[in-house]
Amino acid sequence: MRAMNYPPKSVGLVTPQHVHVTEPLALACGRTLANYDVVYETYGTLNANASNAVLICHALSGHHHAAGFHEGEDPDQGAKPGWWDSAIGPGKVIDTNRFYVVALNNLGGCHGSTGPASINPDTGEPWGPDFPIVAVRDWVKMQARLSDYLGIEQWAAVVGGSLGGMQVLRWSIDQPQRIANAVIIASAPKLTAQNIAFNEVARQAIRRDPDFHAGRYYQHGVVPEVGLSLARMVGHITYLSDDAMRQKFGRDLRKATYQYGFDAEFQVESYLRYQGEVFSKRFDANTYLLMTRVLDYFDPARDYGHDLAKTFAKAQCRFMVMSFTTDWRFAPARSREIVDALVKAGKDVSYAEIDAPQGHDSFLLDNQRYMDLFGAFMTRIANEREAADAS
Amino acid sequence: MRAMNYPPKSVGLVTPQHVHVTEPLALACGRTLANYDVVYETYGTLNANASNAVLICHALSGHHHAAGFHEGEDPDQGAKPGWWDSAIGPGKVIDTNRFYVVALNNLGGCHGSTGPASINPDTGEPWGPDFPIVAVRDWVKMQARLSDYLGIEQWAAVVGGSLGGMQVLRWSIDQPQRIANAVIIASAPKLTAQNIAFNEVARQAIRRDPDFHAGRYYQHGVVPEVGLSLARMVGHITYLSDDAMRQKFGRDLRKATYQYGFDAEFQVESYLRYQGEVFSKRFDANTYLLMTRVLDYFDPARDYGHDLAKTFAKAQCRFMVMSFTTDWRFAPARSREIVDALVKAGKDVSYAEIDAPQGHDSFLLDNQRYMDLFGAFMTRIANEREAADAS
Repeated sequence: MRAMNYPPKSVGLVTPQHVHVTEPLALACGRTLANYDVVYETYGTLNANASNAVLICHALSGHHHAAGFHEGEDPDQGAKPGWWDSAIGPGKVIDTNRFYVVALNNLGGCHGSTGPASINPDTGEPWGPDFPIVAVRDWVKMQARLSDYLGIEQWAAVVGGSLGGMQVLRWSIDQPQRIANAVIIASAPKLTAQNIAFNEVARQAIRRDPDFHAGRYYQHGVVPEVGLSLARMVGHITYLSDDAMRQKFGRDLRKATYQYGFDAEFQVESYLRYQGEVFSKRFDANTYLLMTRVLDYFDPARDYGHDLAKTFAKAQCRFMVMSFTTDWRFAPARSREIVDALVKAGKDVSYAEIDAPQGHDSFLLDNQRYMDLFGAFMTRIANEREAADAS
Repeated sequence: MRAMNYPPKSVGLVTPQHVHVTEPLALACGRTLANYDVVYETYGTLNANASNAVLICHALSGHHHAAGFHEGEDPDQGAKPGWWDSAIGPGKVIDTNRFYVVALNNLGGCHGSTGPASINPDTGEPWGPDFPIVAVRDWVKMQARLSDYLGIEQWAAVVGGSLGGMQVLRWSIDQPQRIANAVIIASAPKLTAQNIAFNEVARQAIRRDPDFHAGRYYQHGVVPEVGLSLARMVGHITYLSDDAMRQKFGRDLRKATYQYGFDAEFQVESYLRYQGEVFSKRFDANTYLLMTRVLDYFDPARDYGHDLAKTFAKAQCRFMVMSFTTDWRFAPARSREIVDALVKAGKDVSYAEIDAPQGHDSFLLDNQRYMDLFGAFMTRIANEREAADAS
């Protein structure tokens, strides 16, 4: 087998790792997972003081493969790197020459960590709908255990966009001593009714697909492909801005003239259909349901009389909050709610509102000002930690 | 049978009327409808000069029943009036003491005018997917024929919101002599990629429902209820503003605490499910597909080198354009495109951007400033036409 030509600044070949956790995990819903598997990847090298570790929290459809390429994936043949390769690598914003980066697949996921498609030890069948509804706080608990396992007492930074940012918020509240810096991108302190409404459409599409079989489709040898595809189509519209869609597709037709029918007529239609189709083949429907519910339920201020400033009272880390002007899923106003509460709570917080045309998806893209500010914050952290280690 | 207690300023009891048109209608798609039925209602009295007629054009899920109550419908028992009863009636904005108001169900509809659920005379079966794709310009042609039939040479005003407003735009372009005033509310000169994308999700939901049977569900004794319900749920989210949903539902729960499951947990979920369910029982899926395609295809400037000002070159009527600040389906910017083009074309146009929290749905609601401005415009028309008739 010939050596791969990885792009410049790529972490190159990465190998997912697994850990089987046997300490039971008591969940917010009241149930307990007796044991579970976690899959994760690491990039860069943990230093002697374990002071350079950065945890990456993934969003709704994300997973542990955040950067680089897996065995056999050839960029020359069109293989795509991990989902946040734009930000993670040697010399990149999250510089793997300086940081030891950990990315994991959350519980309930469908990429190797225990989730609805895993075997329920009590039945010998896939969990399916019996998998417990997890919460962001459960993920943070589980991530804290992974930190113990990896020998990381405190993260130099915990970083995430969207649902990932919610995990970072939860880290700052629930594990104040174990997080030095929080980077919260394109996120929100809780969903709005409109956010929940879009999630509910996605769930109904999946749950009312005849191939869903009340969540036990594994046993029927089918997947609710139509429902999952519709869910993704709806989601995808909310990830892009109106402007981005205008620039990308406008009203461009697939043929020269109107065909007057229901085949894909406009470019945006075939794009959406394709996105839905690809997703429905790679993602587990029960996981999608679960992840949307995790989003719905996230509302840390609920335990603090709906006072977000009080919610952050015990937080000790420094915060960097970023949002994107055309993001209408988690608009800048939602990030400002977080920032205002942090300021009110007397915390150290920086905020950047980035002009970007691509909507919510901007957090995954290579925008100059975004990368500059994000990079400056990460560099400051690396400098500080290295200086502390040297002193 | 006892007399009904109709609310004040109601047009009261109304009876739908039917006309069977035998003159063939050549459609934009290239096909011809040999004959067809049109159902319509009228409110008020046509004056001797037929100078006081107002045509109401309906939106996606609308129909001919715009005001008042049908036989047997008892407001005391909770019966609801026609869809634009807030604006049409004696002493209301479209004052039936002064105007003769005509509202019809468009071709392709499912409320009495010929549409996909009607019998195709060539086969003796419902048209279903064989019903031709109609266009806004076809509707205007058909509405012009209805005008002939009713003895109306020129409409004092043609009025419509959303897709209804697109018909008004088309009237001003295609029938310049037959329309004296155009009222275009919460509309757009064409859909954006995002608008089309939402329509496409709705269509895919319907077309991929196993009960759709390639559009021939009538013969199978079923309707694609799940698909149509999902379509409506998506649509409904886009009719409301984020703010309106926040005010109406927020994150209110149906029970006191989180249930950690997939039953409707938040009020907004059960509201959406209910909206979808009701709609799926009252609306024809093929009509929904057709109406969304009519929206997608509408783009009058396409015939004029994509120059909207040129498109209006032959328009002779006076225009009133209105939009609502929180409408993100057809945002104020879309109305301003129309206004700018009209100004550029040297036409007589008024524009009002109304502060309203309810999003796109605002055009159906009773907002003070909206009703005041809309009413002032309609009163001016009535005054002018009555003065002209008297001179």
